This record gives sequence, structure tokens and C-alpha cells, in this order.
Amino acid sequence: MLTTALTRLFDLTHPIVLGPMGGVSGGMLTAAVSNAGGLGLVGGGYGDPEWLGRELSLAREQANRPWGCGLITWAIKPEVLDLALSFEPAAFMLSFGDPRAHVDAIRRAGCKLICQVQGLDEARLAVEAGADLIVAQGTEAGGHGGQRSTLPLVPAVVDLVAPIPVVAAGGIADGRGLAAALALGACGALIGTRFYAARESLGHDAAKARIVAADGGDTRRTRVFDVVRDYSWPKPYTGRALRNDFMARWDGREDALAASLSAERTAFRSAAAAGDFDTAMVWAGEAVDLIDRVDDAAALVARIARDAETCLRRAAALADGAATATSLPLAR
Amino acid sequence: MLTTALTRLFDLTHPIVLGPMGGVSGGMLTAAVSNAGGLGLVGGGYGDPEWLGRELSLAREQANRPWGCGLITWAIKPEVLDLALSFEPAAFMLSFGDPRAHVDAIRRAGCKLICQVQGLDEARLAVEAGADLIVAQGTEAGGHGGQRSTLPLVPAVVDLVAPIPVVAAGGIADGRGLAAALALGACGALIGTRFYAARESLGHDAAKARIVAADGGDTRRTRVFDVVRDYSWPKPYTGRALRNDFMARWDGREDALAASLSAERTAFRSAAAAGDFDTAMVWAGEAVDLIDRVDDAAALVARIARDAETCLRRAAALADGAATATSLPLAR
Repeated sequence: MLTTALTRLFDLTHPIVLGPMGGVSGGMLTAAVSNAGGLGLVGGGYGDPEWLGRELSLAREQANRPWGCGLITWAIKPEVLDLALSFEPAAFMLSFGDPRAHVDAIRRAGCKLICQVQGLDEARLAVEAGADLIVAQGTEAGGHGGQRSTLPLVPAVVDLVAPIPVVAAGGIADGRGLAAALALGACGALIGTRFYAARESLGHDAAKARIVAADGGDTRRTRVFDVVRDYSWPKPYTGRALRNDFMARWDGREDALAASLSAERTAFRSAAAAGDFDTAMVWAGEAVDLIDRVDDAAALVARIARDAETCLRRAAALADGAATATSLPLAR
Repeated sequence: MLTTALTRLFDLTHPIVLGPMGGVSGGMLTAAVSNAGGLGLVGGGYGDPEWLGRELSLAREQANRPWGCGLITWAIKPEVLDLALSFEPAAFMLSFGDPRAHVDAIRRAGCKLICQVQGLDEARLAVEAGADLIVAQGTEAGGHGGQRSTLPLVPAVVDLVAPIPVVAAGGIADGRGLAAALALGACGALIGTRFYAARESLGHDAAKARIVAADGGDTRRTRVFDVVRDYSWPKPYTGRALRNDFMARWDGREDALAASLSAERTAFRSAAAAGDFDTAMVWAGEAVDLIDRVDDAAALVARIARDAETCLRRAAALADGAATATSLPLAR
């Protein structure tokens, strides 16, 4: 059992946080991760009240351990935040934008504040907002994110925000990644794509199958899925998704896409509804290389935590000359 | 002391490799890293015979431990490779391109082959070439590189090429990064930018000062410095450098730069000669956040190795609930 500032903050068994993937991290996945000893976060995305009400109800009903919710900061409407808080999550995560306007509501609800940052300027804002926990997210993450990579970003954020604890996000899908995060000075890992391909996620089965089949070179940051859905993401955020026909047609030609939007949007919506992922997007991070099957979330949490311990003991044993980097095979 | 497949392969004291930064990793820096117990690599770049002859002489003269040399694979002329090999390096590193044509010459010289890769396809080529060691380089690295990030790339390459040992590169500048690399299953770290700002490097003092002052958000991948120098880098390689006036003027306008090349090139060469880094480039990786002064190479090697051990022991101790992620301050 790995005990860190993260596990102490939320009384967790394992220093693992579910990435609040919009529309994918629903109530069942959230509860499954929390009940397995991690911290589940419902992916509220842009804040659809109907979706949120349903999934937050489910999370509250199914979880017997602390759980939380995440929203996209720049898209938050105060009444949606209040709705989400009414379900009494233990943690609220704000990503992509200035969190300061929403701190009071979250504090009044007795909720811990998690701020996700993609660079040092955002980390300074998170400190100013009084974050209880800061997630440093690298560009290898699936879905929306910034430009910096996890490995150099995490220690830079740790140094900047100390003593606020930092969780690493982006490019982590197994125990090795969690072990590396802890070695960098983070107190845990936030993991998205690996849980997209969990049985309990709301992702389409065909999307999960694409994640299992893909390698990291098949992912790319793009704006095309924001343009076609008419979401005005502020710079510099883009989304990492699996390459598909739609991306091949429009990436780099965003102006042309915007010019033929009404026809393209109709086709895109039909494709998304039909699970046609040649057109619809599958948000996915570079760590898809490490994902080779769909698993139960509880099994994933247990395996990632156990393998991280093994990796850390093995790496520390290198100092005694007692082990080689490849002498202990890991469970997959 | 950290004992790994890398330290065994070259009889090193520490699992640290000097990035063969073209024109920056000269003979003195190479010897300093090797004599401190790491593996120094002369940065032969595009293979200027005069520069190589001088710096390889120096390395051979000054080093009393194994050292090596690196060249840009696609730019190699056979006679330059033979020249470099005549100085009897223990290791030869090939980066950026298909290494297979050069394997025989390297083998005949009794030299170990290190192949640097930026993705899984290149890793397959390195295996086919019979590499003794594979460097998996993430996009956060300074200078030329690819698109994948270190944290997810390293374990994917480790899985693909086992049992060939893998070194992590890109985004590593302190003991935390080396510790993370070992936790990921790598047998060591290749470190560039941190040694650019070493006293013994051939980098200009003004360039070192910029590295010390910069943060990771000040770096960016670009083609403009290749265009102005008339180097035909194959896709998808770009170079990560500190943002400066020249980059601001031309990045995204490479065609315009190519159209006014003769005037721009003259100005660029003058700037480079004068150490004017508003125009000339400073190759630098995202880990510049972690670089806050110019140090002796030997002190850097010792500190990075010692801090990595501390990080790994500290992280492994989390499994006993005996330490927090921030309880042991690291030497800086």
C-alpha cells in the first residue's frame, strides 16, 4: 500500500485518481474506482444538467468511499456548479481556465478543490485559488490539454507550488507510470485513457476496441473536433485523439471546416450517435501502447497500484546492485 | 550506486549518458562526464571532419574511462564515420535515420552500437540493426527529436525491444528524472540540456545564461533554424529551442524564410558567430525549469545520481507509509 499526501487527503487506499473524462467517466466508473480505493471523478465536461444529474446520482448511490466531479472551467455556469455540488462530492476538479471565480461555491459545499494545470502560469493561479491538490497534466494526455510534457512538467510544478501536493497526469496507464510519478515527487497519478477502456466506462465499445488496438503514434492533438462541435476552446488548449478519417481530412484546414460547418456538423453528429469512429472522435492519450484489453476498473486500480510498488522496490534495489531493470516481470 | 544494464555494459559508476549535442558536447565535456563515472558522448552532429578530429583527440586524451561519439544518421558520410571510429570510442550513437548501413563499420571497430529512437517504428529498426542499447527520446528533449513524450514512450519501447536495454531521454535534468526513468524500466538516462549549461560544454556563455533563466514554456519545436542553415532534415524531426526573435519572426512562415534565404542566412551566421541569441538558436529541452546555474559536469553527474537514489528510496518507502513525497529535500 502506497501512502501519500493524496491518499491521506481523501482517505484512499491507492494514490490513483480517475480522469474526469467528459461523458465517459460516468457514475458507475466513478464509483468503481472509488470503491476500489482510488478517487473516482465524474466527467461533467461542459456541464449538461441532465447528464450530470443522472451520473452524479449514480455515483452517490453506488460509491461507498469518497468520490468527486470535474468540470471544464471556462464552460462553467454557476447554476450547473451548484447542481453538481448538491450531490455532495468530496472533491471538485476544475480544468482549463481561471478557477478563482468558482472557489467560494466549492468551499461552501465543504468540498476539496483540485485544480488541473498545464503549465507554470496556471499553477500559480491554482495556488492563488487555494487548491488543496494540483494536477500537473502533460501534453501526452488524451482529450484536452496543453503543450508541456509530464516528465519535466511535474517536478517543475512540485517545486513551484510546494507544499501543495501534486498529482501527475498524462501518459500514465500502468504501474510503471505511477511509480515514475511518485519518483518525480508527485503524490499520485490521474489516469484517463486506461479507464476509458474499462468495462464500466460510458465509452462506446467500438471506441474501447480502437484504444486497445492503437499505438501512441496513432494519437494527435487537434482542434477539428472542437470546431465541428462548435466549442470555442481558448488557446492554447487542443484535444488529443486517435487519428481517423475526419482528422486526416480537416486537421490543418480548420478554416475550411468552419466554412462548411452546417453540413459537416450534421454528418458528425450522426456518426457520433452511430458509433462511427472514422468520423467521430476517440479522445486518447499516448499511453494507448500500454492498453491491450478492456478490464474491470477495480482490477485496474489494484494492478496499477501493485505494479507501482513492485517497480519502486525494484528500482530502489538497483542501488544495492541487487536487481536489474528487467528482472521482475510485471503482471499485465 | 545504481547498478543497471547500462552501467554493466560500459563499466560505469552511474547510469547517466551525456547527450551528444552537436558542437556543444566536445571532448572536454565528454571526458568530464566519463571521468565522473557516466558515459560521455562527443556531439559530432553533421560530421565536420576538422571539429571531430579536434574534439575526439581531446576526448581520447582526457578520458580515462569509456567514452563515445554520436552522429546524425541521415547526414553520415562513410569516411567521416571511419575518421570518428579511428579514435577508438567505446560507444557509437546513431540518431535520426536508418542505422543499418553503418552497423558493419561500427562493429568492425569493436564499438558498441547505441541507437536513438523517437517512436516504435524506429525502435524496430534499431532492433534489426542489432543495437546494444536503445535510447528512447521524447519530444521534450532539446535539439532535434520527434513527437512522442518520454513518459509513455519509454515503457512502450522497453516492452517492444526487450531484452535490449533502454535509456530514457528527453525532459530529464535532475535526480528525479533519472529516478523516474529507472522506475519506468529504463536502465539509465541520457541528459543533454543540463550538460549544455555545464562549465566544460562548448556552448556560448550567453546561451548557458539563457538556459539558466528560461522556463520550459519558453521552448518550442521548430524548423526555422534548419531552414536558415539549409539542412534538409527528414520529416518528422524538428528541433526544440528557446523561443527568440528569429523564431517569432519565421515559425509558421518557413516558405517565406526559404524565399529570402540568402540575406537571412548571412545575418544568421553573423549572429551565431557573435553569440547573438535573439537570432541564433539555443537548442534546449523542456527541463530548463530544473536548471538554475552553470555547474561542473562532474558535480552534476554525482548530484543527479545521488538524488536519484534518494528519490527511489523515498518513493519505495511510501509503500511502508514511512515517508511523504516531500519529506526529504533534495540537494540542488
